[in-house]
Amino acid sequence: MPTYKAPARDARFIINEVLDLASYGNLPGFADATADLVETVLDEAGKFAAEVLAPLNLPGDQQGCTRHPDGSVTAPEGFKAAYAQFTESGWGTLSQPAALGGQGLPHVLGFAVEEFLCAANQSFAMYPGLTSGAVSAILAKGSPEQQALYLPKMIAGTWTGTMNLTEPQCGTDLGLIRTRAVPQADGSYAITGTKIFISAGEHDLSENIIHLVLAKTPDAPDSTKGISLFIVPKFMVGADGAVGARNAVSCGAIEHKMGIHGNVTCVMNYDEATGYLVGEENKGLAAMFIMMNAARLGVGLQGLAQAEVAYQNGANYAQDRRQGRALTGPAEPSEKADPLFVHPDVRRMLMDAKAFTEGTRALALWCGLLVDLAHVAPTEEERQAADDLIGLLTPVIKGYGTDKGYDVATNMQQIWGGHGYIAENGMEQFVRDARIAMIYEGANGVQAMDLVGRKLPAHMGRAIQLFFAEVDRECAEAAGEPRLADLAERVGKANSELKAATMWLMQNAMANPENAGAGAHHYMHITGIVALGLMWLRMGKAAAKALSAGTTDTAFYEAKLVTSRYFGERYTPDAGALRRKLEAGSATMMELPAEAFATA
Amino acid sequence: MPTYKAPARDARFIINEVLDLASYGNLPGFADATADLVETVLDEAGKFAAEVLAPLNLPGDQQGCTRHPDGSVTAPEGFKAAYAQFTESGWGTLSQPAALGGQGLPHVLGFAVEEFLCAANQSFAMYPGLTSGAVSAILAKGSPEQQALYLPKMIAGTWTGTMNLTEPQCGTDLGLIRTRAVPQADGSYAITGTKIFISAGEHDLSENIIHLVLAKTPDAPDSTKGISLFIVPKFMVGADGAVGARNAVSCGAIEHKMGIHGNVTCVMNYDEATGYLVGEENKGLAAMFIMMNAARLGVGLQGLAQAEVAYQNGANYAQDRRQGRALTGPAEPSEKADPLFVHPDVRRMLMDAKAFTEGTRALALWCGLLVDLAHVAPTEEERQAADDLIGLLTPVIKGYGTDKGYDVATNMQQIWGGHGYIAENGMEQFVRDARIAMIYEGANGVQAMDLVGRKLPAHMGRAIQLFFAEVDRECAEAAGEPRLADLAERVGKANSELKAATMWLMQNAMANPENAGAGAHHYMHITGIVALGLMWLRMGKAAAKALSAGTTDTAFYEAKLVTSRYFGERYTPDAGALRRKLEAGSATMMELPAEAFATA
Repeated sequence: MPTYKAPARDARFIINEVLDLASYGNLPGFADATADLVETVLDEAGKFAAEVLAPLNLPGDQQGCTRHPDGSVTAPEGFKAAYAQFTESGWGTLSQPAALGGQGLPHVLGFAVEEFLCAANQSFAMYPGLTSGAVSAILAKGSPEQQALYLPKMIAGTWTGTMNLTEPQCGTDLGLIRTRAVPQADGSYAITGTKIFISAGEHDLSENIIHLVLAKTPDAPDSTKGISLFIVPKFMVGADGAVGARNAVSCGAIEHKMGIHGNVTCVMNYDEATGYLVGEENKGLAAMFIMMNAARLGVGLQGLAQAEVAYQNGANYAQDRRQGRALTGPAEPSEKADPLFVHPDVRRMLMDAKAFTEGTRALALWCGLLVDLAHVAPTEEERQAADDLIGLLTPVIKGYGTDKGYDVATNMQQIWGGHGYIAENGMEQFVRDARIAMIYEGANGVQAMDLVGRKLPAHMGRAIQLFFAEVDRECAEAAGEPRLADLAERVGKANSELKAATMWLMQNAMANPENAGAGAHHYMHITGIVALGLMWLRMGKAAAKALSAGTTDTAFYEAKLVTSRYFGERYTPDAGALRRKLEAGSATMMELPAEAFATA
Repeated sequence: MPTYKAPARDARFIINEVLDLASYGNLPGFADATADLVETVLDEAGKFAAEVLAPLNLPGDQQGCTRHPDGSVTAPEGFKAAYAQFTESGWGTLSQPAALGGQGLPHVLGFAVEEFLCAANQSFAMYPGLTSGAVSAILAKGSPEQQALYLPKMIAGTWTGTMNLTEPQCGTDLGLIRTRAVPQADGSYAITGTKIFISAGEHDLSENIIHLVLAKTPDAPDSTKGISLFIVPKFMVGADGAVGARNAVSCGAIEHKMGIHGNVTCVMNYDEATGYLVGEENKGLAAMFIMMNAARLGVGLQGLAQAEVAYQNGANYAQDRRQGRALTGPAEPSEKADPLFVHPDVRRMLMDAKAFTEGTRALALWCGLLVDLAHVAPTEEERQAADDLIGLLTPVIKGYGTDKGYDVATNMQQIWGGHGYIAENGMEQFVRDARIAMIYEGANGVQAMDLVGRKLPAHMGRAIQLFFAEVDRECAEAAGEPRLADLAERVGKANSELKAATMWLMQNAMANPENAGAGAHHYMHITGIVALGLMWLRMGKAAAKALSAGTTDTAFYEAKLVTSRYFGERYTPDAGALRRKLEAGSATMMELPAEAFATA
């Protein structure tokens, strides 16, 4: 059975020393987030994740969810009790507005906790994760009455939420949705249609489920411009907030899938169900994107989380399992074999994992801070800069973070050899669970196009220019620090590759947009490498500072510097190769006719 | 439900036009392999794979194997009947010696058929695949009596075979095995111990199962030098070949695993079972390696096969599923959306897959030819060259072929979006089945060390020098062909990177062997890229020749040239990045102490 221990120490290092949370103490919500509170929250959340959620992960995978003949669904054994504990402890309320029952703490802290929950049990974490996505859409676009009626219970976790976008004929292309919303005399709408792939669509964890549903009103344009967003509660909610009769929405079937067995994936049937418009008619997609952008960062955290828990179990196994001898001669001659840990190829996979998880954690937490700064930074310029960077980095964290998270989980399974393929050891579950994160909330190819087609050209490239400048500044600063100079040079070179790739796209996508499409995935990965490089420069700087200041925890900070060097050596070379692939353009890629792909 | 159609046309192109099988007609066994016969065999094998095996693949995954209370095991429904059809058609006998009931055809043909069987149903194909591994060990090291007693029935498929290496405490490090073999008065041995991960260890497909078991005699050295190989039949075999009483070997449990559910993975208990020594005492590992080398090429074929079947289903879905619009404007304005096929990122994944599967098929079939030439080429020099190249390329086909095969299967699943994650669509099974090939028969890290530590330095680098020369020659020749010049330049550059990496290893592994270990996996991948590049040069040359000669099948040959260019553009750039990683050496990788990997 795999184990999990939350990397609270590392999160604390990032929050306190890399992001310097204390320096934002004058901003709303930040004053409460003292170093002591941060430590307490991280430790307690880590304990909850490790002690309550992690033990349910493997059994939850093996048991899965059960749909009963009446359409009700039960989550795996133990989930209901754990969810009750989750809501009692208020883990879902951390970064939610105080006025609605939240704790009003910075998002950066919420992000750190979210990683722990996902790593311990991704299937479980998805139930509150989806609720929080639904909360953000209602917060942004719901009427004051809707907010007052639904949000306190959703934030408390008494009710959960869902996102209903996909239909059998459409996932990415929401212009094709067919679910209808017919206005009723009382101002509500009658919602009819079938939604698929609805995570947490039906279960026994919460008193009520608040579905957010995309549908089309009768006269709406037949495109993405004709989509509206509706609240459709499972049980009708009275004006006093009391739960009433069952609405005409039900779970028609559940899917059998590769992983995340503990989170139910439902076919949801709406049969003239009562729905309430959120915001304006035909403006549903914009509202849904608010929800989706938050969700995308959350999915990036899932990539990190599965990599982290797989890494821990890969590292433990590498110490415990003895097989073969070190290439330099027996490391432990009194034993019949050395631990796997002595083998360079095992170490390569562990260091790759370490460089990824620690770098991505820093990147994700920085983005968490930016989410806060986009709202509460003192100047418009700072708020805009934060918003630009979040926009740019969201598809990178989602796309690169989950691609690499899956690779890392696969490598950690590899360390276990044949035992990694056996279900009861849990390593293969991490791979299966990590796999979905590359697909949902916009497949990674869609993320790449969001980055290249939308985020890059917006405001004449303002966001990427800001990012370049940030990397250049950090490289220049690190060049003077002997233990970071090599990394600075390598990250600088990768940043040059990214600049060149950006220039190439600007010059060639205009002539043929397929050049952008053909290079988008490469571009997303180069950006990911440079973004992690930026994080390693910052972490290296903080580590060097702590060591100069005479920290007693030298091992922790020395490891940061070694891992930063490893990142430079083993991650940055790919930037050049990816740029060359990108510069090959779309001509050859798009040349063959459909028949050439027919089975020969 | 996924579909499969054997790529017989492509295999024929490689065998006839790239490898020019006809030019070997004067060699033993080759005379029978006329172009007509090749075509018939490929077509019939393809039909059998597609019509009989492929429909059992998904149901076999879902049902899995069943162990009954008496220790007997039944394969999934339909497997027994399909296996009977397999043996009746003689598909296992193709490349086996005529004297033992085989058809004596070249291995290159057997390899092509093996790919089809694996692609249609890897779990099924493993039953005869393991038999064929066991046959090769008995052929190489068994006594004439053993060969006469066991091989005709094993080749016919009436009996199947297994390989029993792994024990709970050891997989890679066979020096640690504990299974004991005690000599008996009648010349047999009493075998006692527990073996795990025994594929096809117990099932209902064949009359008897011939286990090849590694064990130690009482006074054997306590290392790999003390391992002997034994034949342990499930049912005792009389001198007349009749099946007799049950031997003391039984299946104690079966594993629940990530994939290949249709092939049973057994814990085998030997309780003073009667075994017969194969070859000499303490020389078992050498015998096992004969079996293993053949098996490693077979596992490389599995990587190719899962990539191919996933590719076919990815390509089909990309044509059928409509979502979004082409970046250059609606491709099919009369429809509400264009096929996925119009999107460059989808095309990127398809072209990556096509470049890999066709290139790897050529490489594997070339190796199949080399297996023949190593035995029957007219001069000692040619036989030695063939043997050198097989030795060098076996870990590359196994390691690179299965790493990339898994990546391709993952990408093809990605094309299906959320539907790729759903079990009933079968795409996720390809990924789960492909995953094992990176692990068994020597994990890919072990392959990398076999390449760098053994195959590279052997005979002062004779094999790699031969390989370099072959690539250089092909590049020089292609430089004159306008449509191959770009590819030739890129492959030439990748070959230079490989040469530089080789030089670096020679200079730095002597000083510190960990430099070899740290770069081994990178080196294996560079070699894989150059090897596929060599294949694309040869295929490009053959395609250009066919087009010049006025072929009517222009689409097929044009596609070869386009795909060869794509390979150059999108695969070769990685060679440089991998070389730079390799040249970073082991210092940083190995610097951190074990504590740094402990959960923080």
